[in-house]
Amino acid sequence: MHRKIIPDIVQRLNIASVKVDDTIYKCAQIMADAHIAALIVVDDDGILIGIITERDLTQQVLAAGLDGKTTIVGDVMTANPDILGPEDSAMDALELMQNRGYRHLPVVENGKCISIVSSRDLYASIKEALEQDIRETKAFVFGDRYGA
Amino acid sequence: MHRKIIPDIVQRLNIASVKVDDTIYKCAQIMADAHIAALIVVDDDGILIGIITERDLTQQVLAAGLDGKTTIVGDVMTANPDILGPEDSAMDALELMQNRGYRHLPVVENGKCISIVSSRDLYASIKEALEQDIRETKAFVFGDRYGA
Repeated sequence: MHRKIIPDIVQRLNIASVKVDDTIYKCAQIMADAHIAALIVVDDDGILIGIITERDLTQQVLAAGLDGKTTIVGDVMTANPDILGPEDSAMDALELMQNRGYRHLPVVENGKCISIVSSRDLYASIKEALEQDIRETKAFVFGDRYGA
Repeated sequence: MHRKIIPDIVQRLNIASVKVDDTIYKCAQIMADAHIAALIVVDDDGILIGIITERDLTQQVLAAGLDGKTTIVGDVMTANPDILGPEDSAMDALELMQNRGYRHLPVVENGKCISIVSSRDLYASIKEALEQDIRETKAFVFGDRYGA
């Protein structure tokens, strides 16, 4: 089971991004429109400098009693987040997430974010790989029409 | 693989709950203190009447430009949510979540919420069950010292 982050778990895609001086209100609207739980934060050259998640919005804006229309991304984001490379293995990525309590990690190539991986993406893929392993092992043992 | 919601996936526990007239500000503080993403909403008899999640806070409060200190749970919660029973199977629960896009489901017994299950709880358990299935199948084939 040597699945790589790209292309086995996620594809390259245009990640929704915000700038440090965008408001939390704007972030929440982008998340709501796209049904996503995390946005990347980029500088003027498009280089990844942070990540901001639903959890940050709940814990650092709403729970702190701040106003989403006047609070900006730079006050809430996680700067210099841990990242994955496209060639990293799915198992290593899941371990990193479990050990540090992350639910999302950006996938970065040459400083630019080319995708984002959630723990759910990883679990779904690893479950699929394990099921395939079981099918192949049982086919080997019982013949390839087992379960047909 | 016939894992049941309780006790195989989650245990009975005191679920953090709010009332319909509590503020979103209070919800966010409870979520932040407990590091949880969902709260149940109960009536004065402790009967489950709704669920409210981080996603609701982002999409229906922040993205709508509402004030967390004056917006109440009743305006944002999902009323009469789908529920699980303690005897339900993990696989059925995961299917329900995947089909309807849920990330959390309350576990209810006699109208009272006795636990809450996340899709991550289910994935983690199913991954473990599949790994065990592989180990047992390979032990059967290659002898019980395989991999020792």
